[in-house]
Amino acid sequence: MPLMTRALAELIGTFWLVLGGCGAAVFAAGVPDVGIGYLGVSFAFGLTVLTMAYAIGHISGCHLNPAVSLGLAVGGRFPFADLPVYVIAQVLGAIAAAFLIMFIASDMGLHKEGQATFTLAANSLAVNGYDSLSPQGYGMLAGLVTEIVMTAMFLFIILGATDKRGIGTHAGLAIGLALTLIHLISIPITNTSVNPARSTGPALALLTGGQGQAASQLWLFWVGPLIGAAIAGVVYRLFEQKHTA
Amino acid sequence: MPLMTRALAELIGTFWLVLGGCGAAVFAAGVPDVGIGYLGVSFAFGLTVLTMAYAIGHISGCHLNPAVSLGLAVGGRFPFADLPVYVIAQVLGAIAAAFLIMFIASDMGLHKEGQATFTLAANSLAVNGYDSLSPQGYGMLAGLVTEIVMTAMFLFIILGATDKRGIGTHAGLAIGLALTLIHLISIPITNTSVNPARSTGPALALLTGGQGQAASQLWLFWVGPLIGAAIAGVVYRLFEQKHTA
Amino acid sequence: MPLMTRALAELIGTFWLVLGGCGAAVFAAGVPDVGIGYLGVSFAFGLTVLTMAYAIGHISGCHLNPAVSLGLAVGGRFPFADLPVYVIAQVLGAIAAAFLIMFIASDMGLHKEGQATFTLAANSLAVNGYDSLSPQGYGMLAGLVTEIVMTAMFLFIILGATDKRGIGTHAGLAIGLALTLIHLISIPITNTSVNPARSTGPALALLTGGQGQAASQLWLFWVGPLIGAAIAGVVYRLFEQKHTA
Amino acid sequence: MPLMTRALAELIGTFWLVLGGCGAAVFAAGVPDVGIGYLGVSFAFGLTVLTMAYAIGHISGCHLNPAVSLGLAVGGRFPFADLPVYVIAQVLGAIAAAFLIMFIASDMGLHKEGQATFTLAANSLAVNGYDSLSPQGYGMLAGLVTEIVMTAMFLFIILGATDKRGIGTHAGLAIGLALTLIHLISIPITNTSVNPARSTGPALALLTGGQGQAASQLWLFWVGPLIGAAIAGVVYRLFEQKHTA
Repeated sequence: MPLMTRALAELIGTFWLVLGGCGAAVFAAGVPDVGIGYLGVSFAFGLTVLTMAYAIGHISGCHLNPAVSLGLAVGGRFPFADLPVYVIAQVLGAIAAAFLIMFIASDMGLHKEGQATFTLAANSLAVNGYDSLSPQGYGMLAGLVTEIVMTAMFLFIILGATDKRGIGTHAGLAIGLALTLIHLISIPITNTSVNPARSTGPALALLTGGQGQAASQLWLFWVGPLIGAAIAGVVYRLFEQKHTA
Repeated sequence: MPLMTRALAELIGTFWLVLGGCGAAVFAAGVPDVGIGYLGVSFAFGLTVLTMAYAIGHISGCHLNPAVSLGLAVGGRFPFADLPVYVIAQVLGAIAAAFLIMFIASDMGLHKEGQATFTLAANSLAVNGYDSLSPQGYGMLAGLVTEIVMTAMFLFIILGATDKRGIGTHAGLAIGLALTLIHLISIPITNTSVNPARSTGPALALLTGGQGQAASQLWLFWVGPLIGAAIAGVVYRLFEQKHTA
Repeated sequence: MPLMTRALAELIGTFWLVLGGCGAAVFAAGVPDVGIGYLGVSFAFGLTVLTMAYAIGHISGCHLNPAVSLGLAVGGRFPFADLPVYVIAQVLGAIAAAFLIMFIASDMGLHKEGQATFTLAANSLAVNGYDSLSPQGYGMLAGLVTEIVMTAMFLFIILGATDKRGIGTHAGLAIGLALTLIHLISIPITNTSVNPARSTGPALALLTGGQGQAASQLWLFWVGPLIGAAIAGVVYRLFEQKHTA
Repeated sequence: MPLMTRALAELIGTFWLVLGGCGAAVFAAGVPDVGIGYLGVSFAFGLTVLTMAYAIGHISGCHLNPAVSLGLAVGGRFPFADLPVYVIAQVLGAIAAAFLIMFIASDMGLHKEGQATFTLAANSLAVNGYDSLSPQGYGMLAGLVTEIVMTAMFLFIILGATDKRGIGTHAGLAIGLALTLIHLISIPITNTSVNPARSTGPALALLTGGQGQAASQLWLFWVGPLIGAAIAGVVYRLFEQKHTA
């Protein structure tokens, strides 16, 4: 299929990842008594990938994440030449979703008595960060290690679950639920990225609203996931070489 | 299979969607300490579709939703001629479920000391709405945008997951969990419809009990989902045309 | 496979259903702050069936429930002649599990300062009931209607998901998650049975401890589920006759 | 594939099991209001196995657990000769994960005002235990019975779900969710082991931090799971002999 068609699918899919995951966090996580909490947000992120895997897997491969595209390229499953267009499409989809969340959230509580309302400073669009932007106050090093390890394991699962020797029909299920699992572990640490596009959308939307701290920390959520993904791409090749030997 | 047989399956399936999703919301969401919250309601809605997909998918296609039937028709997967009968069956099933929920709920707390009881005014049968009927006080525009976008993404996933090039055995899983995800995002905004039949059942049941506000807002939950579904039906064709080109 | 071998599998499987579902309710549902609540109990019940479906489906068919065996017999999928042995095995497995839960639960909180302890009168072994035994105080009629409708829908899903025309590999998933869904809806009403064996185990264990109320209500949890299952067995045949016509 | 390659996959997989399951417990279970609780921890443990089943199932079989390796050996599915190397790899992976959790957790709350911080004595690295180490104060006998029964049922499900007569593509799903279910039942009793490697990692990490109680109870979490696994290995053979007869 043409690269631009696949890129459009990646844009729509990453739009869904950020709208679903960050949207659930912004709209529904903290509602008193019946809110979905970190558990619900973890399922939301995972289900965006699970649903898109079956919706566009046959179109673009359903990466939705620059780190996934890089890891697959390093692992020999995706052409490096297609990487820039995929990444641009993913980031654009994430930005569009972040602005839509900001638009809808700005209406929160305005039409009913006694409801909480939304401010960028307090609610932060589910942005990723460390220090004061870390939900439980973890620092830069802990955040960087977490993002590297989590992304490496994510890519390791992706490479294994899509291996020709494995059970390909279940890859979308395994990969989607892997992202759920990663959020169950690491939301308190960095709000969980493992995806530079997912971090960029909310950080840019906040920046336009005058909140620049997340943008200043954005480098970590490109560097960490990309390093982790590249490591997994190299490591998984060990299991392929041994197999063919 | 004859249209009337398929319509009967749609009626039973939509009955299950509303009984399961709205029933879980009315009976179990707000129980103190151990209630299932929005997360449990999100799973309940999704699991009604997941279970029915495997139960009646081979009979009627398991739409359970006028917007799904319209989106599939626009996408070239379902004959427009069958649309009216499907929609009537879906709405009848939804209405039957709403009245059954009202019947059971009216017994809540009457046979044990110290339990909360049920009133239509306070509990609302999990109806969809905006302004004061929005769980977190969102207005009409935010609600309309949300319903259009969520339904469009729902149909996009349905069209992709049932594409001949995809993994059809997992479509029921992906589509059911897509509805779970959509609820994780948008219950606080409109109580989540993306399904005109699901909105119509509780609104009519409330109307018979003298609560007419939901019925007066019902137009939005027909207009929004149908627009969203039609958009997805058109957009997904892009991916089919490119493929055959 | 010989009937006695299949019955042994049913005994082990129903033991697991009651140990898992009722055990999760007794041990983990109400733990302060981190307890699993009704949502966790709903998943526990569903996952007992899902896991056993893949573990013993090829041995005994994995009914684990007299209502399921009856419904499958009425639906023409299971020989009536095997029904008594299956039911006896299921009830024996359920009773064994209820006594094991009682044995373990009696140790609760005895070895650590400041923990809640267990008494049969207060904790009730997740027994089914109405009036004062209904978690939210529903009466006999509401309970009976709920059990009939829920069991009918459960069997309808089972008959459809195991239909030769459907996707058999996913039947265990769909049926297990159907039981999760049924619990999400109806725990507050009757504590959810849809399974006479599951009701009998805890009621008998409580009776040996001098708590006889659940045993006096046990008739409803045989009558309701068996009626519901038989209805589904008859109704689903409509979809088979139309198909062959 | 060479034994050392398979052992490397087991090491990575068990690292993931402990990092995911115990990590979710340490980092995310008890966060106020939005924490994931026992339900989230149960999903985390189960999803580590589910994801690795599809990632490395075709490489090493994805045991991740000395009791699973033993049970499969007793059941005739795995050579006893490979057992020592598998167990060593599993324990090494678990230990590495426990130290990584300790490293990240030690940064908790240090970079933000008003956050809870981490101490080994209070947070315990999700260690397994009885008496005062049991979350709800259960004693040694209740803990031992629980670990034997839970591991026996776990292996019974594994042996059935991977039986040639069953639906092998879904084994990873069924086995992963079996571990979720086991945690839903038994976290309050022993914090749930059913896996000697998973118990050994945190106990050793705590020991290096001067907390030796868990190490002194570690014997139970080797003896119990191994007995349970061996029982299941023997019992499941009944269903194979009957079948071939």
